[in-house]
Amino acid sequence: MNPHSPLKQTLHVIKIGGNVIDDADLLQGFLADIVKFDAPIILVHGGGKTATSVAESMGIPQTLIEGRRITNADTLQVAVMVYAGWINKSIVAKMQALKCKAIGLCGADGNLVQSTRREVTNIDYGFVGDVDVSGVNVAGFVSLIENGQVPVISAITHDGNGTLLNTNADVMAARIAVALASPFYVTLTYCFEQVGVLQDPSNQQSLLSQLNREEFVRLKETGAVSAGMIPKLDNAFNALENGVAEVSICHAKNISTLSATVIGTTLL
Amino acid sequence: MNPHSPLKQTLHVIKIGGNVIDDADLLQGFLADIVKFDAPIILVHGGGKTATSVAESMGIPQTLIEGRRITNADTLQVAVMVYAGWINKSIVAKMQALKCKAIGLCGADGNLVQSTRREVTNIDYGFVGDVDVSGVNVAGFVSLIENGQVPVISAITHDGNGTLLNTNADVMAARIAVALASPFYVTLTYCFEQVGVLQDPSNQQSLLSQLNREEFVRLKETGAVSAGMIPKLDNAFNALENGVAEVSICHAKNISTLSATVIGTTLL
Repeated sequence: MNPHSPLKQTLHVIKIGGNVIDDADLLQGFLADIVKFDAPIILVHGGGKTATSVAESMGIPQTLIEGRRITNADTLQVAVMVYAGWINKSIVAKMQALKCKAIGLCGADGNLVQSTRREVTNIDYGFVGDVDVSGVNVAGFVSLIENGQVPVISAITHDGNGTLLNTNADVMAARIAVALASPFYVTLTYCFEQVGVLQDPSNQQSLLSQLNREEFVRLKETGAVSAGMIPKLDNAFNALENGVAEVSICHAKNISTLSATVIGTTLL
Repeated sequence: MNPHSPLKQTLHVIKIGGNVIDDADLLQGFLADIVKFDAPIILVHGGGKTATSVAESMGIPQTLIEGRRITNADTLQVAVMVYAGWINKSIVAKMQALKCKAIGLCGADGNLVQSTRREVTNIDYGFVGDVDVSGVNVAGFVSLIENGQVPVISAITHDGNGTLLNTNADVMAARIAVALASPFYVTLTYCFEQVGVLQDPSNQQSLLSQLNREEFVRLKETGAVSAGMIPKLDNAFNALENGVAEVSICHAKNISTLSATVIGTTLL
């Protein structure tokens, strides 16, 4: 239960980025913090440098078109191996050691998240799946949560016809959060290696504790928000506008503030 | 329910070997057969050639001592990536496409199977875990089965302190079967690329439809049973002697006969 919506139980959907996963101490501290939460959690994780280094060591060339990675069959195998295999199971083992009932899953498991292979237009992204809110198996997640389990979700989905698809972890977290906003009071938190959205990217003291759409548009124009931060915030605002109760972006080391005043940027 | 023990529900624990996984048509036919079973299933899978080829392409030397693979940190990562990642999720996606509620898990997930790192004696096997029956989380498996899910288990376990361990899939299947023999009438079936135990390995027509311990000892002496088949049969007899109701060894293409007369070798 929560102070804002006494009829719904709180559910924290938390996404951690690759730079958190690649920093062993930061990851351990983050996991130790989230396992203490009273409310249920769904943890969605991204990749990190391991996929690139594994692909390189296997001699699989990585193709980027307009800054976006193309997932051919070999790259899909690497993504599934690294995200759904090594990273997912390593996180689960660490959480289990903290006496948390973690269970590591991808979208194919229990048909939790089905996606649609991205259409080939002028670019063929390969084995990439786009997730719609309707692709999220709400009953499946509710069942896991009611059993007291903590789903740890890698951003690999399936098309329902036997094909695995590589999926954007930020989008996947947002879609899961939106789908579960019906049964739960959902908070969605993107944790990464920065304190939040900065007014001036060169000044760590310029943290915006709050951000609305208008200000976001302005920050894009000034260039204060750029590159990967733009789709991340687009996703985040989209989730907020589609039923998610609270959306914030913070440093993984500040996740313990989630139930109090968030140290980071809260979207309005 | 089953004709032999009306008080217990039947549970099929089925293990598939690497040569089945490496044969796409055989695997697909096998999966199409098992999803039709009326009784619940736990599928345990081994590795196949992918782990070796991934390790080779990553330039990770494989060390064998007395025929047994040493799992150093790099090899553990490959095992987790390939077994708990690529193979596990590929099988789950295929089963989901067949409308089966498959959920892919390793021993760390939900603390399903905890193991003990093998002690260093004259050989240090590295990150290898030995599973005892007491390490199997019976309540966890029962909960999954009661929810109508079909656990697809890769032979990766954890030590409970955050470390993943590589585990023998034949042994893991046997320990799970024994642990679940209390709540269920358990059948344990090892599926591979041969028709069963042969009296004469050079003659595919010499299938032994039944085998007891005495005959097994005799076949070891004559050399008819050798190499990897010996620990497989030792495990299988051990399971039979510890509560598992039926144990058989058959070709993956013959799995559909499991509920009738097994085409393969049934242990007595």
